[in-house]
Amino acid sequence: MLSRFGPLRSLPSFRFLALTPPFPGEYDGPKMLTKVPGPKTLELSKRIDGLQDPRALHFFANYSKSIGNYIVDADDNVMLDTFCQISSLAIGYNHPDLLKAAMSPEFAQAVMNRPALGLMPPTDWPDLMQDSFLQIAPRGLSHVFTAMCGSCANESAFKAAFMAYRHRERGGKPFSEEELSSCMHNKEPGSPKLAILSFEKAFHGRLFGTLSVTRSKPIHKVDIPSFDYWPMSPFPHLMYPLEDHIDENRKEEERCLAVFEDIVQHHPVPIAGIIVEPIQGEGGDNEATPFFFKRLREITKKHGIAMIVDEVQTGFGASGTWWAHELWDLPSPPDMVTFSKKAQASGFYHTLETRPSEAYRNFNTWMGDPIRAFQLRTMINIVKRDDLLNNVKETGAYLKKKLEEIQKRHPDHISRVRGVGNFLAFDTPNVEWRTKMLAMCRDMGVNVGYCGSVSVRLRPTLYFMRKHADIFLTILEDAIKKCK
Amino acid sequence: MLSRFGPLRSLPSFRFLALTPPFPGEYDGPKMLTKVPGPKTLELSKRIDGLQDPRALHFFANYSKSIGNYIVDADDNVMLDTFCQISSLAIGYNHPDLLKAAMSPEFAQAVMNRPALGLMPPTDWPDLMQDSFLQIAPRGLSHVFTAMCGSCANESAFKAAFMAYRHRERGGKPFSEEELSSCMHNKEPGSPKLAILSFEKAFHGRLFGTLSVTRSKPIHKVDIPSFDYWPMSPFPHLMYPLEDHIDENRKEEERCLAVFEDIVQHHPVPIAGIIVEPIQGEGGDNEATPFFFKRLREITKKHGIAMIVDEVQTGFGASGTWWAHELWDLPSPPDMVTFSKKAQASGFYHTLETRPSEAYRNFNTWMGDPIRAFQLRTMINIVKRDDLLNNVKETGAYLKKKLEEIQKRHPDHISRVRGVGNFLAFDTPNVEWRTKMLAMCRDMGVNVGYCGSVSVRLRPTLYFMRKHADIFLTILEDAIKKCK
Repeated sequence: MLSRFGPLRSLPSFRFLALTPPFPGEYDGPKMLTKVPGPKTLELSKRIDGLQDPRALHFFANYSKSIGNYIVDADDNVMLDTFCQISSLAIGYNHPDLLKAAMSPEFAQAVMNRPALGLMPPTDWPDLMQDSFLQIAPRGLSHVFTAMCGSCANESAFKAAFMAYRHRERGGKPFSEEELSSCMHNKEPGSPKLAILSFEKAFHGRLFGTLSVTRSKPIHKVDIPSFDYWPMSPFPHLMYPLEDHIDENRKEEERCLAVFEDIVQHHPVPIAGIIVEPIQGEGGDNEATPFFFKRLREITKKHGIAMIVDEVQTGFGASGTWWAHELWDLPSPPDMVTFSKKAQASGFYHTLETRPSEAYRNFNTWMGDPIRAFQLRTMINIVKRDDLLNNVKETGAYLKKKLEEIQKRHPDHISRVRGVGNFLAFDTPNVEWRTKMLAMCRDMGVNVGYCGSVSVRLRPTLYFMRKHADIFLTILEDAIKKCK
Repeated sequence: MLSRFGPLRSLPSFRFLALTPPFPGEYDGPKMLTKVPGPKTLELSKRIDGLQDPRALHFFANYSKSIGNYIVDADDNVMLDTFCQISSLAIGYNHPDLLKAAMSPEFAQAVMNRPALGLMPPTDWPDLMQDSFLQIAPRGLSHVFTAMCGSCANESAFKAAFMAYRHRERGGKPFSEEELSSCMHNKEPGSPKLAILSFEKAFHGRLFGTLSVTRSKPIHKVDIPSFDYWPMSPFPHLMYPLEDHIDENRKEEERCLAVFEDIVQHHPVPIAGIIVEPIQGEGGDNEATPFFFKRLREITKKHGIAMIVDEVQTGFGASGTWWAHELWDLPSPPDMVTFSKKAQASGFYHTLETRPSEAYRNFNTWMGDPIRAFQLRTMINIVKRDDLLNNVKETGAYLKKKLEEIQKRHPDHISRVRGVGNFLAFDTPNVEWRTKMLAMCRDMGVNVGYCGSVSVRLRPTLYFMRKHADIFLTILEDAIKKCK
């Protein structure tokens, strides 16, 4: 199967500004030996069923054989990976710099002596923070709260928003006796009725606070108690191509902003913070324009509401900038920016104003994990050295242009091509067709993810280059044709 | 300072049944060069203040110099560690077996290719689960949900309890249209009003669900919205020594059980699950007898309520058994047992009945981390080979006996010596005296933790031996005398 991609490499050249080095030792293309899931995956799935729920499994992967943009499954099928562990693989599999970093004594000590970072951080922690998180801190946000995962990062950000809101309400005075005693019973005033607002189709996680602001799919939420007084506001549904629908889209965003401002002013429960994704990843890759986000910043600022930008899925380079919200040119920075996934380290950036009034208020045992800061530091060095942000911009632009061409050739099956950087998506006619088409892609050697009700999302590594894009595009169009 | 511990080693021998090998290359005793925090810690604290909240910091630690039961701080002070990263260090610092495991190519690949375990687990995952989690599974619980931290483990267990409860209520029928649409607005019936019951002074975490069941200290809870319909039940306050207060303690437990059963029967919101710690760690090392827990199991079973045992702090050997609840001899296993901290890997054990009705319901990106399962596997091998559970039993018994002797000599300052294995605690007269006395201990070379309002908790490694106990006891009594 490798040979079929030979001709692609001789196509007339698309102009690249940067010359990204290839991923060391990567495969030349997909190589499929069986259908996916293959017999070995099925055997392993049966084995694990006695121990752990296997129903969501796509396949078992052989991570020692996976290299760069290619994932190898238990049946030795080599697939181009455009889903990348649900958008959490920035650099590709088995990058030699990362393996080398992981095998250093410094790393081994950090992994096996995991500290309680809030009590007894390692002596190199200030340097490590400086060389990792602070290297890529969004403008205006120089403080970091470190956590273990994206949901934890978001919930800790909500807590910081609530604490800052109540601190301001108290005028900086200490807690009252009534607050301290009532909170032990989960009652007001100590456990106040305050809300976090989120947007329709948002996904922010699956713990009790984050699930309350997640609005993408019922299967995540049904049967779980939620904060019923946390409001939801509509998120724009844009028409594509954007340049042909400027007026309609502006009108749609103004409609959403009007509802938003109305909720902010009239919701019966005060709103301490809002959380918003730059592009709603799980909910269907729904975008809004910088105009929308600028207005959100203005309105939240005016009403003293914390603006939390959830960059768990969009962050760390996928937009061609370190953070997707850099593309908005906000009048003032967000109050908090949360991260995880591709950054591998999790947490949120914030201002000094959102540091809690006292110690131990936003705290836990591990407070993140230094090894993921090590990994982040190494990844930042790789991205800079290999100019991967420019690679994302250029490969992304090429990929988007080619997807638009495919859309023109198959308008009944592919629509609404959209996205920034290599964080791209398109829509399909319905869920059944999407399922069939993506299974076809996988059997032909490309692992592709979906989102929303009918969308397909691309979440390749930052090393995803034109040669990978061409392989993906050929297989995609092949699958579309076969599924017609 | 080392020399002062010389004489202790020539005391008449306490009979040991097992011969635990010493931790390789460990220090002979504490060695203090400065007060704690020393000048280098203070300098680093100032540096980190611009990046991260430093107010809870005890000291910066030099983890490459820390060995076994000894932690070395930034000022080169060597301290015997009985707090061990808030009870999360099972084996000691820099164990050669763990460092060796961490520096293997297998480990490096696992750490740098972190998988989405629910979608694309590594081919060795079933074997790894078998050799780690399943090796020490509590009786009757052979399924594992893996997570990233203790709070996430507890919240995922709550979700499993809610799903199982509603599934039973629906008689196994599929979700209704109304459930699916209402849950998107956080409203009933899709987002049901159902409760998790917890106990007074319990600590189960700090995210929105776990914080709602945490009842230890207001500083964790104040200003954060909570589930106000989740009830709290009293937890026994026992009198010591236990053998002299059998009748009073039974009466106290019966009082608590009567309130508990009353809440279960009459709480206006149905209770889907309860969560309980074998010993309430953060809340003051409050114990109950097996009688109490057996009755909890009987009552929850009778009313179809999930019993979740939170072994985040008590689990992985501190009780001298793998799990503290093994000491209760329950009539039937708990429905779920959660773990994290010392086990390093996090999650919960459960029965097949508490597996959700469909895929993707209890799910997230990473679903835990294979490297922590690797670490768990290596730690289990060390514990077995070096007979560390017996070491905990024997050292713990010795330590408790000696603490009771100190209590007799200083009855105005030390009371209620209690605990199992090396999970021990005692009370002090008040918080000011405790603060002063523990600071004195630290300056003399022992790092000790506290809990509850006036308690001191010991959380040493499983390698904590009589020689360490003697050093701790000498310094403790010295500090008590100096603080009188």
